[in-house]
Amino acid sequence: MAKLLKARVVITSPNNPPLSGGAVLVEGERIEALGAFEELKQRFPEAEIVDFGESILFPGFVNLHTHASMTIFRGLADDLPLMTWLENYIFPVEQHLRREWVYWGAKLAIAEMLRSGITTFVDMYLFEPEVIRAVEETGVRAALGEGLFDFPSPGYGPLEKGLALTRELLESYATHPRLKIIVCPHATYTCSPETLKKAAALAEEFNTLLHIHLSETRDEVALIKARYGETPPFHLEKLGLLNERLLVAHAVQLTDEEIELFARRGVRVAHCPESNLKLGSGVAPVVALLEAGVLVGLGTDGPASNNDLDLFGEMRTAAFLQKGLSFDPTRLPAEKVFEMATTFGARALGFEELGFIAPGARADLAVVSLAAPHLTPFYDPFSLLVYSARGGDVTDVMVGGEFVLRGGKILTFDEEEARRQVIEIAREVRALTKKG
Amino acid sequence: MAKLLKARVVITSPNNPPLSGGAVLVEGERIEALGAFEELKQRFPEAEIVDFGESILFPGFVNLHTHASMTIFRGLADDLPLMTWLENYIFPVEQHLRREWVYWGAKLAIAEMLRSGITTFVDMYLFEPEVIRAVEETGVRAALGEGLFDFPSPGYGPLEKGLALTRELLESYATHPRLKIIVCPHATYTCSPETLKKAAALAEEFNTLLHIHLSETRDEVALIKARYGETPPFHLEKLGLLNERLLVAHAVQLTDEEIELFARRGVRVAHCPESNLKLGSGVAPVVALLEAGVLVGLGTDGPASNNDLDLFGEMRTAAFLQKGLSFDPTRLPAEKVFEMATTFGARALGFEELGFIAPGARADLAVVSLAAPHLTPFYDPFSLLVYSARGGDVTDVMVGGEFVLRGGKILTFDEEEARRQVIEIAREVRALTKKG
Repeated sequence: MAKLLKARVVITSPNNPPLSGGAVLVEGERIEALGAFEELKQRFPEAEIVDFGESILFPGFVNLHTHASMTIFRGLADDLPLMTWLENYIFPVEQHLRREWVYWGAKLAIAEMLRSGITTFVDMYLFEPEVIRAVEETGVRAALGEGLFDFPSPGYGPLEKGLALTRELLESYATHPRLKIIVCPHATYTCSPETLKKAAALAEEFNTLLHIHLSETRDEVALIKARYGETPPFHLEKLGLLNERLLVAHAVQLTDEEIELFARRGVRVAHCPESNLKLGSGVAPVVALLEAGVLVGLGTDGPASNNDLDLFGEMRTAAFLQKGLSFDPTRLPAEKVFEMATTFGARALGFEELGFIAPGARADLAVVSLAAPHLTPFYDPFSLLVYSARGGDVTDVMVGGEFVLRGGKILTFDEEEARRQVIEIAREVRALTKKG
Repeated sequence: MAKLLKARVVITSPNNPPLSGGAVLVEGERIEALGAFEELKQRFPEAEIVDFGESILFPGFVNLHTHASMTIFRGLADDLPLMTWLENYIFPVEQHLRREWVYWGAKLAIAEMLRSGITTFVDMYLFEPEVIRAVEETGVRAALGEGLFDFPSPGYGPLEKGLALTRELLESYATHPRLKIIVCPHATYTCSPETLKKAAALAEEFNTLLHIHLSETRDEVALIKARYGETPPFHLEKLGLLNERLLVAHAVQLTDEEIELFARRGVRVAHCPESNLKLGSGVAPVVALLEAGVLVGLGTDGPASNNDLDLFGEMRTAAFLQKGLSFDPTRLPAEKVFEMATTFGARALGFEELGFIAPGARADLAVVSLAAPHLTPFYDPFSLLVYSARGGDVTDVMVGGEFVLRGGKILTFDEEEARRQVIEIAREVRALTKKG
């Protein structure tokens, strides 16, 4: 049955004025109509009315880069140099990583993401078929792929098996309504030029995205320069990999020339400001990228280096950083970071029918209730969502026309079970790190 | 009746290991005992047991700098140059500021602060007697004073009346259990040397703090240099105002020499990282200040330039900034920013019995429930509170031995009424800015 969703204000896209007293008609997986509530009520008398009360209805967020299952490592070790963290904690435990850990970690992550208004996430990790299982069961939307690298993987073993797994997933899920398989070579320092080329060929064959960590730290840039005589972007350029198919995570350490190159080649960027700060990587030149015409969305990165999956916080940090470091409070205004978290993120994934509210678009929607002291008073919906709202303020989420969160309750799976399972997994993880 | 508070973990202070399965005995306004739950239960069989379940119990936060009532301007105008914001929005409306606006704005702010675990806040604004009324009614703790400046104030009229009001408040509330009156000259660019000296004399006479905005922006430093031939810190030094009585808000634009001077004179600093970013002021040299031995606490600044009153977020931003900008993830670890938000903040106010949990300390406590996806799993309580928790996660707050928030409900006042009143006030504020 068609649903007529009513809110105090509907944000349709950052480029249109918010609709006060607006409503959205959802039929099947799509938005059928948009307008004043009373008018739509007359046009669609049969529709079930869902009134969200004193609230803002907005397009669901796109988390453009994460490793969702790493919820199991959230807070395991912080405030450490990157290599100590990876080599003494993450890598030793990942050697013992189990399929079920990835599954339960992803489910817990999805609970957290839904509660922060994320309807689509991009995932790269190990045992991705387990993340796929979590996505299918929970009703969220995702673009994901198995992390590929030259050394043997706890997930698939030797690289050839990883490429075979990726091909198999690309074939199996070619027509899935909520899943897009992407090809995920981990980074230029973990993948040889041959590996990168094989991954790119696969992405081209299946007309999908190539997703890679790039230019995250100064050390990485120095290493790639020493190894290949070029910075990471120019290394990829030489390999013919810089194009509209490439989605780059981080892009912190970029020269002006590299920004221009990204713009010319149509490379897309997932900006992860909080992870970049927490790991001591630096601050990506977001405004320069946007001004050059590069499509930049927002990602949380994994919850072990953030330590949450909250795109409200990411919008806020992205905007605040650009203002504070440039001494210019007009930089990266609320509407622009909101656009990065919605429309830009969707477009970076090639999802042209996502990231805004309009007739014909897919019904991926989220609702923030304003009935809270920190969301009072109401002057401007973008300001409230970007500068005052936070994960957990979202009461309702719809993905492809189906409610997955309704009135603060997740409908599609048992969130408490996911919590209990991850608490058990954490006991084993802690035991492994103590041994190490 | 004595209360025995039980939590999964009790954080007593950042310098002691957290107490697993710990409990706190509260008698009157103080903590009487601390230890293992079973042991305290035997020692105090008469005490009422309050079990917070799967939770962290910790010392309440000290918000070391805010203008609480500015909740009424939250989101009114953002992403603007500071002077446009002040001159086109804040100042014109403040000309029409009414006593009740300050009262209701403060009450709404207190609701938000309690829900973010803040038990003490420092306030400087107009019509402070209204903030005092809100503090008395709501049961929170505060150090506050009327904002003083040379031009006529909408609050008190000419400066002499502001000084007289301050003296009157100092006399009236000298023995209040939860209120400390401080003297608040607004800034060096709004107060003449004579005004500053009068304010300082008053603070000395009543043995209280002098609180001032200082070295917030590069423009301010340039202006004071042009006007007095010295930077703001050296201007105050010349006036004899740099001492242990001085609590400085912001301290963003400091030279190494000024940091040393602050350390030598025992000046205290309220670090407000989010406001400093949002207004394009920059990033304060927090690590350098701490290393020099300066007492630095955390403040949210007013909710119109933040746009929230959440010290969890402030801890996180403070830590992330120092790591990201120094390329060093070990900087300002979770325990240290937690200390800034609790013990250091309390000590900066001269509250030696606050900011930690120990027998004899005042019972200002907060509880975060861990039963949420973003707070799962549990490896380290400091990491969870600093990097994953957020305002709104606090379920219970006690100030001076009395519950003010219990099981997610504010006990001492009608939070919804405060929201309704501020929504009405916002209508008038909006009308005033439209006229302007």
